[in-house]
Amino acid sequence: MPVRAAYLQFAPAYLEVDQNLAAVESLLRSVEADLIVLPELFTSGYFFQSKDDLERVAEPIPNGKSVAALRGWADSLGATLVAGLAERDGDHFYNSAVVVRPDGRVDTYRKVHLFYEETILFEAGDLGFRVFEEHTAAGTSYRLGVMVCFDWYFPEAARTLALRGADVIAHPSNLVLPHCPDSMPVRARENHVFTITANRHGREEKEGESLRFIGMSEVCAPSGTILTRADESADVVEVVELNPREARDRNINAHNDVLRDRRPATYAATSEEGTALESGS
Amino acid sequence: MPVRAAYLQFAPAYLEVDQNLAAVESLLRSVEADLIVLPELFTSGYFFQSKDDLERVAEPIPNGKSVAALRGWADSLGATLVAGLAERDGDHFYNSAVVVRPDGRVDTYRKVHLFYEETILFEAGDLGFRVFEEHTAAGTSYRLGVMVCFDWYFPEAARTLALRGADVIAHPSNLVLPHCPDSMPVRARENHVFTITANRHGREEKEGESLRFIGMSEVCAPSGTILTRADESADVVEVVELNPREARDRNINAHNDVLRDRRPATYAATSEEGTALESGS
Repeated sequence: MPVRAAYLQFAPAYLEVDQNLAAVESLLRSVEADLIVLPELFTSGYFFQSKDDLERVAEPIPNGKSVAALRGWADSLGATLVAGLAERDGDHFYNSAVVVRPDGRVDTYRKVHLFYEETILFEAGDLGFRVFEEHTAAGTSYRLGVMVCFDWYFPEAARTLALRGADVIAHPSNLVLPHCPDSMPVRARENHVFTITANRHGREEKEGESLRFIGMSEVCAPSGTILTRADESADVVEVVELNPREARDRNINAHNDVLRDRRPATYAATSEEGTALESGS
Repeated sequence: MPVRAAYLQFAPAYLEVDQNLAAVESLLRSVEADLIVLPELFTSGYFFQSKDDLERVAEPIPNGKSVAALRGWADSLGATLVAGLAERDGDHFYNSAVVVRPDGRVDTYRKVHLFYEETILFEAGDLGFRVFEEHTAAGTSYRLGVMVCFDWYFPEAARTLALRGADVIAHPSNLVLPHCPDSMPVRARENHVFTITANRHGREEKEGESLRFIGMSEVCAPSGTILTRADESADVVEVVELNPREARDRNINAHNDVLRDRRPATYAATSEEGTALESGS
């Protein structure tokens, strides 16, 4: 049986948690899927005017209002949800994503590669890149990795998830740079995994600076084929069927396996600072 | 002063070393450039019918006929040449690329990631990924990394070269898969380096199997912009001006540097076999 996998794309309203939860609830109504990926920071919006604004909406995991809503939807839909939200853990704030199953179990990934002013607001993730063994209601097993938005820029993120066994990478996002939708096929192909990027759309402003979020949520196959891509500004849930076994065999021909052919002994940078030059001989 | 960098694209004739050297000599006539990248296996062709055929054309480096020709062109053009050729070192065979300067100095890179039946014919490169300090005749310094064809598929190759300080990656190729030209912008952007892919065109056959080489040699900027791309089947030398300092500053905004923001502690795969799964909690 395939995995019915989906992205949900919408435009969160800044700091309007209840309104955003209602908007998602409305979009999820009657969706039939096993795995649904929501955008990054889906309850709060993205472009925090201040740390105070962040503190107002950041929630503990799993004991916050947004995870409670996600648990309700996971239960009623029989689906695993992956969703980004601002996490408060004591005095620490993380740009996190939760994995919420129908039975209420919750796991957390904390974004490792922080973008732009996130570097001021959040701490970098301290839980590493995590892969979870998941099951659909029909009994299909798959291995789910999670990364958030700007993590895509660093090939090490998706690579680490693939090396840890991911068949499917869930990728909650708030993309503003234009490059990701055309780059995710490369991430999928080089690791031979499925990728599900759930982006937001809309615009947010701060002190005269305007961020436009580019939509174009998409699902890529291990071959690098784009299975579906959303419009730039649609509120939409798109479901596609994935066969996780397609991602298990990493051979791209009779002689090459994209993970086994790695040669880590040659990858060590003698210096992170780029001073390890060789001179001509 | 900029670096005038070029790719040379043509269709080598199988095993016709003298004919191929003459074809390249003709294409190089009156080229004005500081750095010229030629295709992989440019003297021999690619799809070896047998190990005997490979042994017939493989050459020692630097004491073979093809390096002698490259030294002559480097001297007469005042340019550094990067070119792929089949290397014989005693009983060992490598799919190598040489860096040949106007003063005759030669360095070698041996292809690390072997594609398809190359895995039978060649040994994997044992010299690692190398970066060389180069100078144009006008006195501009730049750091040159080398990778060959299928190395592009593995993000670790270009990443290692960038971490070792490359401003420009020379990429001799014999591409048959269609994905590389649209993927090199990602390699350039994620590492903030220039890339010069010199591909071949034409077709070769072996036992009824046909390989078509896709041309489309290209130069990418650190921004990921494609500065120039060749047609699928043109014999062409294309020169573009690069400012290597563009690649030195790896910042993409006031808060992000694509190399300094790496978080290697999070990249360790607990297991190369993908068994490091976590269970829900």
